[in-house]
Amino acid sequence: MSQEVNKRRLRAGIVGGGAGAFIGAVHRIACELDGQALVVAGAMSSDAKRARESADAWYLDRSYDSFQKMAEEEAGHPQGIDFVIIATPNNLHFPVAKAFLEAGIHVVCDKPMTFNVEEALELVRIVEKSGLIFALTHPYNGYPAVQQAKTMVANGELGDIRKVQVEYSQDWLLEPVAKTSLKQAEWRTDPARAGASCCVGDIGTHGENLLEHITGLKIESLCADLTSFEPGRKLDDDASMLLRLQKGAKGYLTCSQIACGEENNLNIRVYGTKSAIEWHQQNPNYLTIKPHGKPWETWGRGSGYMGDPAKAITRTPHGHPEGYLEAFATLYKLIIADVRRVKSGQSRQGGYPTARDGLRGMQFVVKAVESSTLGSVWVDMP
Amino acid sequence: MSQEVNKRRLRAGIVGGGAGAFIGAVHRIACELDGQALVVAGAMSSDAKRARESADAWYLDRSYDSFQKMAEEEAGHPQGIDFVIIATPNNLHFPVAKAFLEAGIHVVCDKPMTFNVEEALELVRIVEKSGLIFALTHPYNGYPAVQQAKTMVANGELGDIRKVQVEYSQDWLLEPVAKTSLKQAEWRTDPARAGASCCVGDIGTHGENLLEHITGLKIESLCADLTSFEPGRKLDDDASMLLRLQKGAKGYLTCSQIACGEENNLNIRVYGTKSAIEWHQQNPNYLTIKPHGKPWETWGRGSGYMGDPAKAITRTPHGHPEGYLEAFATLYKLIIADVRRVKSGQSRQGGYPTARDGLRGMQFVVKAVESSTLGSVWVDMP
Amino acid sequence: MSQEVNKRRLRAGIVGGGAGAFIGAVHRIACELDGQALVVAGAMSSDAKRARESADAWYLDRSYDSFQKMAEEEAGHPQGIDFVIIATPNNLHFPVAKAFLEAGIHVVCDKPMTFNVEEALELVRIVEKSGLIFALTHPYNGYPAVQQAKTMVANGELGDIRKVQVEYSQDWLLEPVAKTSLKQAEWRTDPARAGASCCVGDIGTHGENLLEHITGLKIESLCADLTSFEPGRKLDDDASMLLRLQKGAKGYLTCSQIACGEENNLNIRVYGTKSAIEWHQQNPNYLTIKPHGKPWETWGRGSGYMGDPAKAITRTPHGHPEGYLEAFATLYKLIIADVRRVKSGQSRQGGYPTARDGLRGMQFVVKAVESSTLGSVWVDMP
Amino acid sequence: MSQEVNKRRLRAGIVGGGAGAFIGAVHRIACELDGQALVVAGAMSSDAKRARESADAWYLDRSYDSFQKMAEEEAGHPQGIDFVIIATPNNLHFPVAKAFLEAGIHVVCDKPMTFNVEEALELVRIVEKSGLIFALTHPYNGYPAVQQAKTMVANGELGDIRKVQVEYSQDWLLEPVAKTSLKQAEWRTDPARAGASCCVGDIGTHGENLLEHITGLKIESLCADLTSFEPGRKLDDDASMLLRLQKGAKGYLTCSQIACGEENNLNIRVYGTKSAIEWHQQNPNYLTIKPHGKPWETWGRGSGYMGDPAKAITRTPHGHPEGYLEAFATLYKLIIADVRRVKSGQSRQGGYPTARDGLRGMQFVVKAVESSTLGSVWVDMP
Repeated sequence: MSQEVNKRRLRAGIVGGGAGAFIGAVHRIACELDGQALVVAGAMSSDAKRARESADAWYLDRSYDSFQKMAEEEAGHPQGIDFVIIATPNNLHFPVAKAFLEAGIHVVCDKPMTFNVEEALELVRIVEKSGLIFALTHPYNGYPAVQQAKTMVANGELGDIRKVQVEYSQDWLLEPVAKTSLKQAEWRTDPARAGASCCVGDIGTHGENLLEHITGLKIESLCADLTSFEPGRKLDDDASMLLRLQKGAKGYLTCSQIACGEENNLNIRVYGTKSAIEWHQQNPNYLTIKPHGKPWETWGRGSGYMGDPAKAITRTPHGHPEGYLEAFATLYKLIIADVRRVKSGQSRQGGYPTARDGLRGMQFVVKAVESSTLGSVWVDMP
Repeated sequence: MSQEVNKRRLRAGIVGGGAGAFIGAVHRIACELDGQALVVAGAMSSDAKRARESADAWYLDRSYDSFQKMAEEEAGHPQGIDFVIIATPNNLHFPVAKAFLEAGIHVVCDKPMTFNVEEALELVRIVEKSGLIFALTHPYNGYPAVQQAKTMVANGELGDIRKVQVEYSQDWLLEPVAKTSLKQAEWRTDPARAGASCCVGDIGTHGENLLEHITGLKIESLCADLTSFEPGRKLDDDASMLLRLQKGAKGYLTCSQIACGEENNLNIRVYGTKSAIEWHQQNPNYLTIKPHGKPWETWGRGSGYMGDPAKAITRTPHGHPEGYLEAFATLYKLIIADVRRVKSGQSRQGGYPTARDGLRGMQFVVKAVESSTLGSVWVDMP
Repeated sequence: MSQEVNKRRLRAGIVGGGAGAFIGAVHRIACELDGQALVVAGAMSSDAKRARESADAWYLDRSYDSFQKMAEEEAGHPQGIDFVIIATPNNLHFPVAKAFLEAGIHVVCDKPMTFNVEEALELVRIVEKSGLIFALTHPYNGYPAVQQAKTMVANGELGDIRKVQVEYSQDWLLEPVAKTSLKQAEWRTDPARAGASCCVGDIGTHGENLLEHITGLKIESLCADLTSFEPGRKLDDDASMLLRLQKGAKGYLTCSQIACGEENNLNIRVYGTKSAIEWHQQNPNYLTIKPHGKPWETWGRGSGYMGDPAKAITRTPHGHPEGYLEAFATLYKLIIADVRRVKSGQSRQGGYPTARDGLRGMQFVVKAVESSTLGSVWVDMP
Repeated sequence: MSQEVNKRRLRAGIVGGGAGAFIGAVHRIACELDGQALVVAGAMSSDAKRARESADAWYLDRSYDSFQKMAEEEAGHPQGIDFVIIATPNNLHFPVAKAFLEAGIHVVCDKPMTFNVEEALELVRIVEKSGLIFALTHPYNGYPAVQQAKTMVANGELGDIRKVQVEYSQDWLLEPVAKTSLKQAEWRTDPARAGASCCVGDIGTHGENLLEHITGLKIESLCADLTSFEPGRKLDDDASMLLRLQKGAKGYLTCSQIACGEENNLNIRVYGTKSAIEWHQQNPNYLTIKPHGKPWETWGRGSGYMGDPAKAITRTPHGHPEGYLEAFATLYKLIIADVRRVKSGQSRQGGYPTARDGLRGMQFVVKAVESSTLGSVWVDMP
């Protein structure tokens, strides 16, 4: 294989993410931020005119009005894309991913991975057969403070983990969708496009992924109470659940999209026998450590005392805050490095969520819905 | 009846709270802080010498080595106490309260109210038959910011309440009792003196009381997971529970005494359809309000814009913080005012927890234990 | 001398502090909080009726309508007061203190100590000749976190001190006095009763005292810019000043009573070559430490790792906050202990501000006014 | 003129910023973040090999080892750069800017603008004669919360401004340069490359710019105390100064590079007669408002209630924080939009600092040094 790929920015394509879709611009910025890739092609809308206009606004070289056509043509193009970004509603994740993987193109996909568990299982099979990279964007893993937390847990600095508390609260579904101008409010609350859950699927999965990512412990069983507070809404807009984790740890996870006044209040606390950690996504550059019998500590991103894994994904010195886009870009940085490796015949290094993580997220959604539907009883995770 | 009682400081007695018991000094300071009462008599220990020394250290006029004798003698003393404070381990609350009520003396009792529900039911009967005041010290209700929260909910400023999140985390039972010098650690973890629960009984009840106090909503059912993390411990040191409240509200309550690094991290959030409130006991002078579609607000205790009920229990201007002792003293302020009223033939005004609240707390403990014992299933509150 | 004084609560008297005066109640609560003294006599107003009513409201044993008479009679009373509290406007501090000292009664005086430097010098002379205790209430020194800061500096944990930043901002003089109902606003802005300065005298002195108390460094020279922002006001309502301290340290002090929205925003930061400390009076239970090259630390009042001097003045466990009244009470605790010692023939232990500190505060005010009047030039402190 | 420029990403060049220079990567990311420009050419080092390697690492199309040659060749290249970024030490800003302006190329320059005031005056002349854009990167102006503050002041929501407090504290020069591995520590403390000041020039100017940017008030006079705490250092590493502003406002500015434990603690408070604002760069997504007699408010970037100017420079929804790179990118967004306008014959819209702002910054540095040298006396700003 060729080293040519290491002498240029990679070329990316995008499906979805057209004008008005917040997440499309986030993917483009994150993908390009470190100067390692450029988005050059897109099928940004199923409406041809809107696709063209969206592509022009981003100065793309090539615009398509069908993802199938895009997969086919890019695969054969001499300057074809190295990987594709999927930023569509949930129900399209599977067919788009399948099309590009079958065309031999690496895939970066927004979460949750698929519409249902069946698709997720099938996608894992396709990915693993393909030998291609499939990465899922849980961007919160990209924050250096989260990486530091994970490192500390792995190093045993917390001792045995006993209790975990995870929350993700928003309020953007506080009112009926008809009253909001948010594009995604419509499909997120529609079972035909969002799947079995709104709130757990959209943000509960971020909490589940963050929890397992930092602690290295799997959720073994859960007891969930999902609610649809807004009259007429077909999917949950709030959930709380008790958790039992590996090694006897316990905890809870709560998520809400009707928590009046909350922005993106994602936070996690992990209590061990020796120390505890606390992190708040809304002020993400700091990690609080609470060692037993000692003063609390505030660890600042970018500081010299941070661990090497956190330093490796840090761009600006301490005190010059990084934000959500930088965390998102860190995932891309790791993914792009692996695309370069695979394309030049090296082995992957990982560090980003994969199809197996996406499957686990889908199983988590299904089990939470199942628990709640049966009367908020305990159910086991696979 | 006489107005004489209004022309002097009231006289209080105390049972328990001898040297080394943190809570005894708290009761004395709180009782005397507003200059409306003095502790003058005590049965501060069942050990006569220790009782005497404790009484001397406080310059008490009269010391007893038996609460029965104290009740009897004070009832007949011309300068006898107006009310008694009970600051003993849980298992003595009931007999002491009974003795003083039967001697015609008003009672202020630490929580939880009794050793078990049976005693609680009996105590309610005795209190209501006596016509005397029985007050239970849930001191957090005495913070002006908590009062402001309660007022706002009652005024409908939050709209309909949808979700409530309550937490009370400490770490003082993180290690085996044998390793700590804390006097109360021993009896709190002993079923024979603490009752059916350690953590839920000691601090979970504070959370339950605060939740119902602020929201005015009763817990209708709960699903609790109690754990004893420390090997060999006979009672729970941690619990998380899902809650269903009146009017369709939901939420959770978590409490822990093994949450490494936590001090007395009691906090509550209440989300309504119009606004939300958030309060943290460790920085108790401020109340955060999150109105829908508007900036967050921080309301400062002692400010001119606070509601009248909060102002009525405020001592220092804004920016000169009040703390735990002042909140505790506010309960005493309200109780003493009622003792004066009853003694001078007026009707009570209340504002502090009563025997019925104490009974509810005991039922909450029993139901949480029952839920957990049955496999963390849903159980209804009475 | 007799040990009798150690077997009872001490008896205190108060001059000033009648109904409506915030600071009177603060002194009474602080004096009595630890159960070591009771206020039993007072000359609470120069208006006889108001004095009587104020005394009755506090259940005092004896009320006077003249401080001279009170000094004389209490000195000869078999149950006479052990010390007097002075809580009058500034211009009365000196004559009242003089009267009681000459009657052989210990004195606790509010700050600033006197009306002008001449009185301060004379008072120091009187105090030192009398052999009696004269204590000045700078209450912020009584916070355990401040004590911890002082201990750390003294232990060399900060290295050499280079820079100090002190601020005390309020907004209660934001509007003309005529628009406020605050009793003290009237005399504080009146040169005939407040002296040469309003803002620097009232709160700048707290900053100066706190700075020198914590750092152990004296201010050697200053360059101050005092302003009276409110039209028609005769005294300063805002000041900023550059400071040069002993051992080459530098810094600034700013104080304001027209800083819109500020409550009692007193805070201090001290930067050394090895570490830094930061403390905020409005959340006073925590001290932030910023050691070079290490994570920030938050030290919680009441924690086991705190130094012995801070522990010695701590009442409640960590996480149950103490506030302004407790800090104020700590001064009284130390003062009362010394009154007991002097009365029983022992030597003093100190720990509270004295007449010499009061003199220094007065000199600070005079020098700040002098600097500003001369065009904000540098002037040396005595 | 042609509209061609609006149909493509602009092409940028960079001088300086080679490997190891933090600020080079910041400029590249900020310039490219919104997808409106790409860095394609560079003279990244005066060492030819290092220049080439730096350019390769960024996949640049063209690398130069001389800025003069780069200016000349790019001016004549059919795909030549639209603007140049200057990221060299201070002493090179002027000659590089002059070379590109004379070659007809727009300039974006790091601050402080020049080595001394004489160069600054000359540069203003050259810029204004050229008709080209010259933009200075004070990135903090690019934070939406800063924009919101500026809007509120301009709308009169604060009333008349009375007091301004500005601070910028760091600790990266706490130790001798020899002990640090930071590349810029060497030239920042060298008078031959940094100019008359280290600390005031490097970060004091950010404070001055931010203060005048938000308040719209010019500094009229100042009294500064500059210190070089580290033995042997030739330039200041700390400064505090009293300020007098237009319309009778007063305040102070402090900056330090030896403030132990501080990261990039830039913060500003502005007190008016009706309200106050407070902003902290280290948690930059929130702006605190303190309206007179009302609760404090926390305004969150990205919220619907923010003003239009702040919304216009917002990329992610509230609760998904933006950081330093986004603020920096906002300057580039505004600059690039103006480059497009000028190139297509439209008039500029501005919104970023210009050569006149750069001149003012240089004058501020000179006056602060002059004041301090003369004994910390008052000097007038031009």
